[in-house]
Amino acid sequence: MSAHNVVTVEVGLGERSYDILIGPGLIERAGEEIAKRLPKARVAIVTDEHLAAAGHLDRLRMALDKTSTASTTTVLAPGEKTKNFDALQQVVDDVIAARLERGDAVIALGGGVIGDLTGFAAGIVRRGMNFIQMPTSLLSQVDSSVGGKTGINSPRGKNLIGVFHQPKVVLADTGALDTLSPREFRAGYAEVAKYGLIDRPDFFAWLENNWQEVFSGGPARAEAIAQSCRAKADVVARDEFETGDRALLNLGHTFGHALEGATGYDSTRLVHGEGVAIGMALAYRFSARLNLASPDDASRVEAHLKAVGLPWRLSDIPGGLPDAETLLNFITQDKKVSRGALTFILTRGIGQSFIAKDVPASEVLAFLDLSLKR
Amino acid sequence: MSAHNVVTVEVGLGERSYDILIGPGLIERAGEEIAKRLPKARVAIVTDEHLAAAGHLDRLRMALDKTSTASTTTVLAPGEKTKNFDALQQVVDDVIAARLERGDAVIALGGGVIGDLTGFAAGIVRRGMNFIQMPTSLLSQVDSSVGGKTGINSPRGKNLIGVFHQPKVVLADTGALDTLSPREFRAGYAEVAKYGLIDRPDFFAWLENNWQEVFSGGPARAEAIAQSCRAKADVVARDEFETGDRALLNLGHTFGHALEGATGYDSTRLVHGEGVAIGMALAYRFSARLNLASPDDASRVEAHLKAVGLPWRLSDIPGGLPDAETLLNFITQDKKVSRGALTFILTRGIGQSFIAKDVPASEVLAFLDLSLKR
Repeated sequence: MSAHNVVTVEVGLGERSYDILIGPGLIERAGEEIAKRLPKARVAIVTDEHLAAAGHLDRLRMALDKTSTASTTTVLAPGEKTKNFDALQQVVDDVIAARLERGDAVIALGGGVIGDLTGFAAGIVRRGMNFIQMPTSLLSQVDSSVGGKTGINSPRGKNLIGVFHQPKVVLADTGALDTLSPREFRAGYAEVAKYGLIDRPDFFAWLENNWQEVFSGGPARAEAIAQSCRAKADVVARDEFETGDRALLNLGHTFGHALEGATGYDSTRLVHGEGVAIGMALAYRFSARLNLASPDDASRVEAHLKAVGLPWRLSDIPGGLPDAETLLNFITQDKKVSRGALTFILTRGIGQSFIAKDVPASEVLAFLDLSLKR
Repeated sequence: MSAHNVVTVEVGLGERSYDILIGPGLIERAGEEIAKRLPKARVAIVTDEHLAAAGHLDRLRMALDKTSTASTTTVLAPGEKTKNFDALQQVVDDVIAARLERGDAVIALGGGVIGDLTGFAAGIVRRGMNFIQMPTSLLSQVDSSVGGKTGINSPRGKNLIGVFHQPKVVLADTGALDTLSPREFRAGYAEVAKYGLIDRPDFFAWLENNWQEVFSGGPARAEAIAQSCRAKADVVARDEFETGDRALLNLGHTFGHALEGATGYDSTRLVHGEGVAIGMALAYRFSARLNLASPDDASRVEAHLKAVGLPWRLSDIPGGLPDAETLLNFITQDKKVSRGALTFILTRGIGQSFIAKDVPASEVLAFLDLSLKR
């Protein structure tokens, strides 16, 4: 397999800088790419039953055998519910039992759940082991592969427990995306569109014209992934520990997390990317209601999400939702709340998002009430 | 209570710099010292049953009431066994249930166990909450109050799971030391002596002359604590994340941890500071055996530890020890092992410690065998 089709995006974080490699065949090349960066390292692979069944785990093990890289494997149950303390403890115990040392590495082979959980485990074993991400879903390739956020869920909210821990390298094998269901791919696409909506209006316009090729797997797909990683890397480099600008990446997420909570993290009803899609549409519509953005821009966002087959309004979620008051309560427990005031990512138009602090809860409540009737 | 007798040691770590305040009456002044640094912060206090019974918890709550600082409290079982995943999860759950936000703070009121566990919890809730340390033992005042190491134990070894998380401020109330048992105080003193033995020969000589006053509670006590914090702060400022020089602080700890493991972390037989005391004596004697240091220096260390009532040889540990082979196995699982080679802190004399890599396991084995017969 040649390296010809591989695009490299550098995430510039000083001594924590690392490369994201994007392209086909990267699972097969994992042994050499890891050995190049961490000579003689042994590795602990963490993955889930779906990835193992899809053959990705065997492909990775064969690739590691080629470079005589010793490995152990932990296979977890798939799904968001795995992001809990028990699974964290299992991974930590397995890594310690394998007697890996600080110079060795922990590999996350999987989507966001595996990446977040494994990165957290890597961040706390021996106060920080080398971490290698091999994201296999579109969502994880464009989102969790950049930024170093790791963590698990609390019964009281998503991602409330975790650390910042940057990977040594990210190997995003675009071939792995072929085994995704259309719904999973679409959910990941919501985060791709998000980067356009935050601060890259040209990218959003490009997506409006090229989304079909992104979905069908032409060269536009790798380009969209690379562009997304670059967009996120730019924001993260400005604000590694989320004390300022990085909050822009939460566009759609405050509403989205509340919806995930309100549907009990039931993936048959709503997955993360779908929550973000609806959340972005709501953020644009809410901005229009507050006279910050034009209603036409909100409609343009809604139209694009609808075109690609993503949900965009509350009534797109199957099963009933609780009332506006209850939804607001999910929002105020959300961790982006600062000192009791509501912080939202709002917008002045396509690609003109900004951090709005002190958004009155009464406005949010009235808007949610209206949105529930739409 | 005036601030007159309070000594301040600054730990210089760039934007993570913080002050250690050392002196009497600091628990009573906690409200104002916290409000000065984190205005309007709410706090979650974590402590143990011993500290609560000794009245320190009530004193702290009253101090917080004076500044109208809202607080919640988690009281844990005392002892090393509390440094586990269950207690970590309990503290994390309690902090999240209290709806503390990133600007709020988690306070550790207690010794090393409470400090390590609470700092770890503070480091992972919302990927890092403000952390305030109020160390109440001599050991924690001179050791864990500097350096930002937090963590819990694994069944396979001590402190194998954790993060680096620096406190916002350390309030070391020397009055709290009056409630320590003589044995606890002595154990903490082992780490005080350690700083002299690492790289401050004058401090060690001063301790040889002034240890009685340090034990009886004269002005030399606060001076010894401040000097210890400064010594550790110097090393930590050079190497925050333990990639080099900081390993010097492990003088006595590689042997010490092995002994703690070999005695099943049974505090009736051996507490951490006692393990360090024996470990330091062994490190000096082992260095003499390797012709690195003079046997007279090893004898001087042994004599001082003996004078203050600390154990200094393996036979000072009540109950039998396993054989040298088994002890060595405890060492090779110790996390200071790098790539299979044994790393020890050895010495060329009093205050002349250095990091020795590639120490042959066979030499360690032979030395342990000899030491067991002493």
